[in-house]
Amino acid sequence: MSLSDVCSQIQPINEALRDTAQQWLNQLTKPLGSLGRLEELAASYVAITGELKPTVPRGVVFTFAADHGVVLEGVSAYPREVTAQMVLNLLRGGAGVNVLARHADVSVRVVDIGVDHDFKKVPGLIKRKVMKGTRNLSVEPAMTRREAEQAVMVGVELATDAIRDGVGLIGTGEMGIGNTTPSAAITAVMTGRSVAEVTGRGTGIEESGLKQKVGVIERALDLHYPHAADPLGVLSKVGGLEIAGLTGLMLGAAAARVPVMLDGFITGAAALIAVGLQPLCREYLFASHRSVEPGHRAVLDHLGLEPLLDLGLRLGEGTGACLGMNLLCAAIKVYTEMATFDEAGVSGKV
Amino acid sequence: MSLSDVCSQIQPINEALRDTAQQWLNQLTKPLGSLGRLEELAASYVAITGELKPTVPRGVVFTFAADHGVVLEGVSAYPREVTAQMVLNLLRGGAGVNVLARHADVSVRVVDIGVDHDFKKVPGLIKRKVMKGTRNLSVEPAMTRREAEQAVMVGVELATDAIRDGVGLIGTGEMGIGNTTPSAAITAVMTGRSVAEVTGRGTGIEESGLKQKVGVIERALDLHYPHAADPLGVLSKVGGLEIAGLTGLMLGAAAARVPVMLDGFITGAAALIAVGLQPLCREYLFASHRSVEPGHRAVLDHLGLEPLLDLGLRLGEGTGACLGMNLLCAAIKVYTEMATFDEAGVSGKV
Repeated sequence: MSLSDVCSQIQPINEALRDTAQQWLNQLTKPLGSLGRLEELAASYVAITGELKPTVPRGVVFTFAADHGVVLEGVSAYPREVTAQMVLNLLRGGAGVNVLARHADVSVRVVDIGVDHDFKKVPGLIKRKVMKGTRNLSVEPAMTRREAEQAVMVGVELATDAIRDGVGLIGTGEMGIGNTTPSAAITAVMTGRSVAEVTGRGTGIEESGLKQKVGVIERALDLHYPHAADPLGVLSKVGGLEIAGLTGLMLGAAAARVPVMLDGFITGAAALIAVGLQPLCREYLFASHRSVEPGHRAVLDHLGLEPLLDLGLRLGEGTGACLGMNLLCAAIKVYTEMATFDEAGVSGKV
Repeated sequence: MSLSDVCSQIQPINEALRDTAQQWLNQLTKPLGSLGRLEELAASYVAITGELKPTVPRGVVFTFAADHGVVLEGVSAYPREVTAQMVLNLLRGGAGVNVLARHADVSVRVVDIGVDHDFKKVPGLIKRKVMKGTRNLSVEPAMTRREAEQAVMVGVELATDAIRDGVGLIGTGEMGIGNTTPSAAITAVMTGRSVAEVTGRGTGIEESGLKQKVGVIERALDLHYPHAADPLGVLSKVGGLEIAGLTGLMLGAAAARVPVMLDGFITGAAALIAVGLQPLCREYLFASHRSVEPGHRAVLDHLGLEPLLDLGLRLGEGTGACLGMNLLCAAIKVYTEMATFDEAGVSGKV
């Protein structure tokens, strides 16, 4: 299967079913529309999946890990080796996303798609390394077009396999020291905003580091001329391997009519590429939260997605996605478990 | 125990422990502060309870049900008998709060504190009826001062008993056709806003009904002259029995250093009374969400509480409180289950 095959398999969601779902919600024992966005979530889930009598789906968060050549430019507050160290922490269950995934009753799958480290036998690690980190995007393209496409297809395959095995809800996560830099570069190109507007402090760089980061991205854009009309070109020139994997994950899920819960800024940048490649993909995406990272607002505005939560999160890994999946599952339970006015013998409006 | 005894037992929360908790959070494998409000929630929980090594508390939502004499004035879209019908639905587990409580792994206790109906033997119903609904506040005081205090003490006792039995987190809920009218009246008095500003459509009245509702409340305030400096007087003149019970629930929980998760507008009005009676009570309150009901914004502003969620909810019952309790428990798990940088062998900032 090729990337263009996947994109062509994605169909519009069934808007008529959204109306049918809302009619069902209107019969439940509550004033019309009084569960607000929970009702909207449930109706969207029905429209996406086509299941008029849904069950709570099995959820998985995929946390893609990769390194970034651009960290040589001093764009991150943490050293490069933290990517590999955090992969081990994720596999031992000690990271933020592990805690929130257990809370939300979803599982975490950790994918090495491009970490600059030779992992020994590590139970649970999904080994799909395309290369040992990207090249330094401030001096050369981060990836070749072929490498980028290969990483996208890793995501497509992981989504496809998981869904074949019964997964019905996919969350997006990432771990990669330096990855707000390619995310800001992608966001600037795909949304047309200025680099300064979409670049933030990531894990916590100082003011001087932020200026440095903006300069690095601006130079990269001047060097490579990435263009929004060629999303795969943008991804290969200024992207990252985990971002590419996430792009593929979204496309693979949408092709199988499975909803995707976005996390924060980095997964949002991947969504810009996925939706750039296939605009219909957008209908399968939910935005779990609004990140503190300033570029995330530009991402959500561009995609027309209203985040479910605004809790000042900026950790990534899929932490926000877990909370969003938890809300989506709550919404599905509202849809399936509440009594109707008839069943409960409750009078309607006067 | 009297109401003034309870109020005098409430102590300031331990702000020094909040700092200690934040220091612990800073050692966990994430950039400083990157879990935003989840960190704030966990630190507040520690400061409230005094537990530096907390466990996830057993949570209970109390849903107080009562009727309102003012429904004679046509202020609600639903008929009065819906209160009793919904009590039965709540006890059978078919209401919105039941679904969301199961989702959040907390239980629901339904209290008849003033429903205008003689319930037969109904398993699970907590029978603490003070009277069969309030009097019509547009022509006479809703309750005597004594009745109001009695209803408050029902809430105090239920909180105290639950906490003695091991409950460590209390959610607030209500069911009472017509109860946005007393809530708006209380909010106008306690916050000093105009009646028009804090009165909304409740379960869904039309424009003409809304005008009628504003007029009814304005007449009641002209008739009774309730004053913010006498919160129990406000409660008795223009309040409701479930609102009184909720007030007591909050005071009883705060006296025992147990946090309270507020639901929406009606429980917010009860919080205005509770905080009016004992300002220290405020430190024990969390706002789960911002309701669509316009008066809720005035409540939250007055209390200085920032809601966790903004999902367009306006159902009540404790539905928003369940989602808020779920987030608070997630925050406690972050605090207790994440690995530290040392444990995980992850490098710190450069």
